Amino acid sequence: MLFALAQINPAAGALKKNAATIRRFYEEAQAAGAGLVIFPEMALAGGPPQDLLRYSSFTATAERLIRQELAPLTAASATAMLLGTAYRLEGELYNAVLLLEKGTVAAVYPKAALENRLPFREERYFSPGGRSAYERWGELAMAVVTGESILQPGRGKALLRRRPKEKQLLLVNPVASPYRYRCQKQREKAAAALSKKRRSALLVVNLVGGSGEFVFDGASLAFNNRGELLHRAASFGEEIAYLPGDALFAPAAEQHPAAGEGIATLNEALSLGIRDYFSKNGFQKAVLGLSGGLDSAVTAALAAEALGPENVLGVLLPSPYSPPHSLEDARVLAKNLDIETQTVPITPFLHAYLEKLNRSGEPELDLAEENLQARIRGNILMLLANRERRLLLTTGNRSELAVGYCTLYGDMAGALAVLADLPKLTVYELAREINRRQGAVIPERTITKPPSAELRPDQLDEDSLPPYSILDPILQLYLDEALSDEEIVAEGYDAAVVSRVLTLVERAEHKRRQAAPALRVISGLNRRSTPLAYRHDG
Amino acid sequence: MLFALAQINPAAGALKKNAATIRRFYEEAQAAGAGLVIFPEMALAGGPPQDLLRYSSFTATAERLIRQELAPLTAASATAMLLGTAYRLEGELYNAVLLLEKGTVAAVYPKAALENRLPFREERYFSPGGRSAYERWGELAMAVVTGESILQPGRGKALLRRRPKEKQLLLVNPVASPYRYRCQKQREKAAAALSKKRRSALLVVNLVGGSGEFVFDGASLAFNNRGELLHRAASFGEEIAYLPGDALFAPAAEQHPAAGEGIATLNEALSLGIRDYFSKNGFQKAVLGLSGGLDSAVTAALAAEALGPENVLGVLLPSPYSPPHSLEDARVLAKNLDIETQTVPITPFLHAYLEKLNRSGEPELDLAEENLQARIRGNILMLLANRERRLLLTTGNRSELAVGYCTLYGDMAGALAVLADLPKLTVYELAREINRRQGAVIPERTITKPPSAELRPDQLDEDSLPPYSILDPILQLYLDEALSDEEIVAEGYDAAVVSRVLTLVERAEHKRRQAAPALRVISGLNRRSTPLAYRHDG
Repeated sequence: MLFALAQINPAAGALKKNAATIRRFYEEAQAAGAGLVIFPEMALAGGPPQDLLRYSSFTATAERLIRQELAPLTAASATAMLLGTAYRLEGELYNAVLLLEKGTVAAVYPKAALENRLPFREERYFSPGGRSAYERWGELAMAVVTGESILQPGRGKALLRRRPKEKQLLLVNPVASPYRYRCQKQREKAAAALSKKRRSALLVVNLVGGSGEFVFDGASLAFNNRGELLHRAASFGEEIAYLPGDALFAPAAEQHPAAGEGIATLNEALSLGIRDYFSKNGFQKAVLGLSGGLDSAVTAALAAEALGPENVLGVLLPSPYSPPHSLEDARVLAKNLDIETQTVPITPFLHAYLEKLNRSGEPELDLAEENLQARIRGNILMLLANRERRLLLTTGNRSELAVGYCTLYGDMAGALAVLADLPKLTVYELAREINRRQGAVIPERTITKPPSAELRPDQLDEDSLPPYSILDPILQLYLDEALSDEEIVAEGYDAAVVSRVLTLVERAEHKRRQAAPALRVISGLNRRSTPLAYRHDG
Repeated sequence: MLFALAQINPAAGALKKNAATIRRFYEEAQAAGAGLVIFPEMALAGGPPQDLLRYSSFTATAERLIRQELAPLTAASATAMLLGTAYRLEGELYNAVLLLEKGTVAAVYPKAALENRLPFREERYFSPGGRSAYERWGELAMAVVTGESILQPGRGKALLRRRPKEKQLLLVNPVASPYRYRCQKQREKAAAALSKKRRSALLVVNLVGGSGEFVFDGASLAFNNRGELLHRAASFGEEIAYLPGDALFAPAAEQHPAAGEGIATLNEALSLGIRDYFSKNGFQKAVLGLSGGLDSAVTAALAAEALGPENVLGVLLPSPYSPPHSLEDARVLAKNLDIETQTVPITPFLHAYLEKLNRSGEPELDLAEENLQARIRGNILMLLANRERRLLLTTGNRSELAVGYCTLYGDMAGALAVLADLPKLTVYELAREINRRQGAVIPERTITKPPSAELRPDQLDEDSLPPYSILDPILQLYLDEALSDEEIVAEGYDAAVVSRVLTLVERAEHKRRQAAPALRVISGLNRRSTPLAYRHDG
């Protein structure tokens, strides 16, 4: 018996298109002589379909495609398939994996541990299934457990019954598991431990591809029944992998290197996230502002990699407060990346506003004028985006978004915020990685000069914020680990700085509510939400 | 025994401030001789505190306030209190109601039916409690059931044990129940039915006040043990209501008129929503664009009512395509409302952009230029808002937001979208109500002229959209009732129109993701979310 792991890249909600992809992978596996083709969780609906699941017509279409197009593929075939989809059974809607065999739905395995975090919110849409069990299937005893919860320590018992006495146990684990920076090794270790503990061969089959704010990273896994890794599928690309049944129950022939989880994977995740966001939304071309600074340089380099440099337009938008090196660095970057540029000085627009709206007609150099500059840039970029059918890429990082060091409708404008989940220090690391990967495309000065918003003369980020080497760890403790101010101070940070940072974070909630969608490659499903009017009062 | 219903208006997360409010109400009730003061669900934390609940310091502060400030109030007193708060018990965090009596936490009643819709997401933060039971308390048998689920048909059994044999049964139901247009009568009917069925006196105590996107409407209720209404507290205002114990178990002395749920309540809900959004965020003054059209007129009238006309600035932002009647209507409105105005023609700014960014230097009259006009207006309004410490009110209605007939960073900019949950037809009704209420402040022509975005010569909404009398019911069937296109067509709508509307809705998801917070007075907790890249291809 040959097993095929079909790591596909479906689009959320695009049932017919996804059915065609499933058919293509199935037929390839069938031609290769596979006995069972395993697709990921929610392969047909794409992950996650969200409120589309409220429409009975949506789930009815999925069921019709299964009955009329996908199950029939298996009718006169020795190749069965396990397929993740939304499925209605006795009036209840399940996140289910179906066994399609001999032209029929031979078995339905509903997911038990529903993922309730945003954007999945599965408890809103699905009824939970019961505990999975190993059931005889051909020569094997096979259990199907959907979702990544089975890999969490201590969850196994609640999700999977005891293994039976059979010698050849196979645990199939279709998942829709978004990429999260630096979590690959742990995921693989947990899977190996599960396989070993259950003395089961284990096939983890993941989605791949960008889907809104998330990037499914693939990296499907096959273990023999001793917890030894037999195959790791591609990260960030579709793949069909074949595993002979014999191999699943024999010692591994070779040892695989540990999973990659370094900064290179972050680069690939962001690049795939951009590419699929554009293609799944029907866009080819991007526009972004190039300031000569780090964030826009890294965003431009990622966009050039993802979309091709010929599809990226960098716009230079100097203000009266832009030092000459900014324009220079932006031009060098664009030349290195081989992307098109356009230069539109914003000074005339700024003066037009100030003449009409300032009593004196002269600049007042207040915060309102700083914001206005950012918003003039936003307007120009959106005009170009709308006119040339481009998507505007937002370039801000998580550190500045967290403390509100950014302008609503200004630098926050855009269809996709590429770096909005990356602490500034991680953006530095990524810049070095890009220069290793693409050649030294980002000018050294862009990386080494002190960060500045350049919205007033000689402005530096550090005038308003603690250095990023202090800000970033404080933000991590507050946002990711939910430590309070006293606890953060106990970690060795200055009390006044901590209080100031936390106050800034809470006061910026209204900005984050209107922020562009961000590629959530670090925080994963842990989206933070606090009351709009809450003021941290230290 | 005298019961006090303390319908308070706390601020989400403001524990110390809320504790002071609780103390003030408690002391008033104590002075009035109350034996039990009942506060709403989450009275101390304010509803809903969202991710603040992840911080152990937050829940620890709440518990410290209870132990050190609130429980001690009851120490040498004959007045006990039932208080809603987040509370930790044996390592689990509950949404609990505490009985504070004789200086201690005498009982803890954890909420069983957690509210999992946004923004509550209680299953993320709280462990569920068990079924409530009537327990002896003084002369009575009292049960405490938190949350509005108990009013849903068929839920009673799962949430409340059978009533015991005692004659005097009291069911206390602290809730945090947001206002929803036209749901008051049904809510009250369900409460009456519960009281009658359980032969229990019933005290429903609700929060009041705006909290982010929601407006708690108060309207706390007291029923005798026959399901007869004894008292309905104020809607949209704080109140402390007193009920003598005897009255709870005797026939009602008088019959109350049915609950109000007409358009006047919608006006009051929006007005309170604005007022509290400003006060809880620490702002006094509003700015908004006045176009001479319906939405901005209604928003301005509500703002003037909520904040006082002296705190509202209306900005007239005529473009080359604004007909003279628009300016005229806007001026008449402002005069009627007695609000300040400022006029800033956007033509010079528009020309400045077009000269630099259009190849010909002349207008191209494309969609990009229409959006640019809206964004220039957004920039001017935000400059005034930032400079004068005002919040910008967004004026768009739900119909246009649903189909994307609005401009990101343009007319969609703002801190609070007042009408974004109202179908256009409801905005018309509200305009008539405002003119009844405030005198004819909204000019008749503003109500009767055909709606237009005025972004190109002679533009009308109906050039791009079906008439609102057709659009609004289609949107209701699609968005609120989750009917599919075939089902909507079966209701008698034209198939091509339905398909066009649904396609527009799905293509506008990216705009709604960056929309300003909206007062959710009609859809309530049912926030819709679909994949960013989904295209309805009906």
